[in-house]
Amino acid sequence: MDSDTAAALARLIRGERVAALGTLRGGAPNVSLVAYLAAPDFSAFWLRLSRLAWHTQDLRDDARAALAIVQPDDGRADPQTLMRVTLRGDVSLGGGEGPEPKAAWLARFPESAVTFALADFSFWRFAPRDARFVAGLGRTHNLSAAQLRRIA
Amino acid sequence: MDSDTAAALARLIRGERVAALGTLRGGAPNVSLVAYLAAPDFSAFWLRLSRLAWHTQDLRDDARAALAIVQPDDGRADPQTLMRVTLRGDVSLGGGEGPEPKAAWLARFPESAVTFALADFSFWRFAPRDARFVAGLGRTHNLSAAQLRRIA
Repeated sequence: MDSDTAAALARLIRGERVAALGTLRGGAPNVSLVAYLAAPDFSAFWLRLSRLAWHTQDLRDDARAALAIVQPDDGRADPQTLMRVTLRGDVSLGGGEGPEPKAAWLARFPESAVTFALADFSFWRFAPRDARFVAGLGRTHNLSAAQLRRIA
Repeated sequence: MDSDTAAALARLIRGERVAALGTLRGGAPNVSLVAYLAAPDFSAFWLRLSRLAWHTQDLRDDARAALAIVQPDDGRADPQTLMRVTLRGDVSLGGGEGPEPKAAWLARFPESAVTFALADFSFWRFAPRDARFVAGLGRTHNLSAAQLRRIA
């Protein structure tokens, strides 16, 4: 993957705010919308989830997940050329290996301040195992978690 | 669900062109971007997939899928208020119960004409079993496939 492509992937991850979260619900696919915050080195993608939500129930049952970040449809002739990346990995409750990003989260999602007063919301940490980046038609790149960190 | 909410869901489904497709890959979640075309009565959501693509391999192994259609992020203060619907169901190859929507597909995705000359592309039919519509914060509605058809 050349440096322009790597830069485009980093811009996509940092530029978008929402992603499609794939989880298992009763063993079948479920997809929901989540806001996310990427750690500066792309080693983690933070989510702030209510334990009342379906996807949170799903993750309690099975930690495996996929997170798809998609360039918004700009009405171009061929939407198949939209840039997108799918990260696959596991999601765990709380910071685990480090502090939770409360300040950075509030800077990005100021309206979510209320969730810090609600007992059912927590940070969940998506740790990517690999990434599949579609930079355009026929331009697909597979990255390991280590390769993803290198382009951050 | 009141008539305004039903109309908003129908507009979302008809207005967007791409969705996040959740599939099972080796039993784990996978999410990819697909273009879709809703049947006029919302009984089917057509996809045009290459058998070389990961999601198509996934669907050959397990027909269960989820399709999330999300209002594009418009930069609003709280992205959690974006409208979205998740359909869950099964995907099968080809028309099955009826004709394939070639003309309607080409009208919506003219750049995809080339795929009709390529042997690896086919229509796949997503048949929704249920739908979960999030019209905004705390405004979640569950619909059966029959209820979804009634709002089309």
